Amino acid sequence: MSSQRLKFGRLGSRGNEFPVVSAGNALYDLRHLATDLDGPFLQTAFAARTRAALDAGELLEVDKAETYRVGAPIHAPGKIVCIGLNYRDHAHETGAVIPTEPVVFMKDPSTIIGPYDEVLVPRNSQKTDWEVELGVVIGQTARYLTSPAEALHHVAGYVISHDVSEREFQLERGGQWDKGKSCETFNPLGPWLIPSNQMNNPQDLRLSLDVNGIRRQDGTTANMIFDVAHIIWYLSQFMVLRPGDLINTGTPAGVAMGMPDTPYLKPGDVVQLEISGLGSARQTVGAA
Amino acid sequence: MSSQRLKFGRLGSRGNEFPVVSAGNALYDLRHLATDLDGPFLQTAFAARTRAALDAGELLEVDKAETYRVGAPIHAPGKIVCIGLNYRDHAHETGAVIPTEPVVFMKDPSTIIGPYDEVLVPRNSQKTDWEVELGVVIGQTARYLTSPAEALHHVAGYVISHDVSEREFQLERGGQWDKGKSCETFNPLGPWLIPSNQMNNPQDLRLSLDVNGIRRQDGTTANMIFDVAHIIWYLSQFMVLRPGDLINTGTPAGVAMGMPDTPYLKPGDVVQLEISGLGSARQTVGAA
Repeated sequence: MSSQRLKFGRLGSRGNEFPVVSAGNALYDLRHLATDLDGPFLQTAFAARTRAALDAGELLEVDKAETYRVGAPIHAPGKIVCIGLNYRDHAHETGAVIPTEPVVFMKDPSTIIGPYDEVLVPRNSQKTDWEVELGVVIGQTARYLTSPAEALHHVAGYVISHDVSEREFQLERGGQWDKGKSCETFNPLGPWLIPSNQMNNPQDLRLSLDVNGIRRQDGTTANMIFDVAHIIWYLSQFMVLRPGDLINTGTPAGVAMGMPDTPYLKPGDVVQLEISGLGSARQTVGAA
Repeated sequence: MSSQRLKFGRLGSRGNEFPVVSAGNALYDLRHLATDLDGPFLQTAFAARTRAALDAGELLEVDKAETYRVGAPIHAPGKIVCIGLNYRDHAHETGAVIPTEPVVFMKDPSTIIGPYDEVLVPRNSQKTDWEVELGVVIGQTARYLTSPAEALHHVAGYVISHDVSEREFQLERGGQWDKGKSCETFNPLGPWLIPSNQMNNPQDLRLSLDVNGIRRQDGTTANMIFDVAHIIWYLSQFMVLRPGDLINTGTPAGVAMGMPDTPYLKPGDVVQLEISGLGSARQTVGAA
């Protein structure tokens, strides 16, 4: 048991999810240890505690796991901080200059939905776009970190994050991006939170995104302009990162905005996301 | 009793506040009715319920109220949405063009502190600035409202909000503003939440801000470019406003950035804020 990879998730209807852990081929109810996958739990040595509870036989298997909806693998972060234009190829395709320091914006945390939930094209939207991203969940409070070298100790784990974006709202309606990033359902998350101690190098992950079976994004976190450690150190100079907070670390090339035919999302489309080691997610598109 | 104005607040050390209501000359413990001043409580008919409980003698007076710290009058909003450049005179002083629709950005909700707490100048900051603002707290979920006419029904109440801003971080470090708006302690709030049913016209309030006894801002919400009803209706087209969310509605002229000698905040400064009907707040400035 002790050498198995652990994957943390949440099951249940929206607003009524409960925490689970996957180990081997089984799924265990985590409520013996945690009320939820939130800051108070994630700031403890949660992976080691979970492993100990599994080894001691204290966790019960989830019965009929397949009958539950899969929720986002964290509960209500205090904030979602996003890094813009963090891959050279994506900056190029959007016509932006390469940033000399991280571009930072925010998303409404209530945009988070489960990895298989429906993404809604907002009313009056013509330019709803996709962005596969490595999501970083904070485990320890990070405030004025001295250097990037200490940053990764503040990570609880990693998730697949879909930073859905409305390009007109983001870029043509006043210049501040949050308006095009915070629409309802605009942050599918999961299925799994993978603890940071099982992820030796977050800069060696392949990310891909398909729309209707066509590969649109295919990148690697090796190509980030600012790596995860730099981002956490940098953000900690401007704001306090707290346990449970989510950071979306930017997207590689291949978004609709950057393509000649700008094939923006429309109801009926199916988006599939994958990041190596973090699993895969799949959302159908509907209309708000 | 029934005709008295009610003012809602929170007392106690940071993170341990409890809800209270002021009526007449007395302060009453609200824990009989509410665990906290948060979305679940504010989305009920909370003012009427509180009045009924007072009339029935169900609420106990707070003993030695003056010995408690005053906290922010709402607990942990899901998001803080801010409107930029929403007073013509302020847009002019910053050299910005008058917006044709609301400029929207966000602040980390964990920046909220009490109305008499210390504001910290961030490390490496040269341009920490003040902004007195009318804060609007959402009471009912607002999603794709049909018109501004229905917007004010979604307001729980109003608060004094101090949208502290670091101008270099905001304007000279990549172009997205959130970085200069989300520093630790950057959103003093309160002291009181005044229920919307006691505020007939949010567009007729005087706002002022003094630094070290010098009047720096002196405006009226009558001069907003986009009024509160318009803002709520507008935001609801882009995101879902949820009970407990906070909207900072913009600041009038008179910020440090707009003055010839740019007298940015420094440790030891004292900032006093006042909005008619909402009380007054006072923060001393320290260093992070």
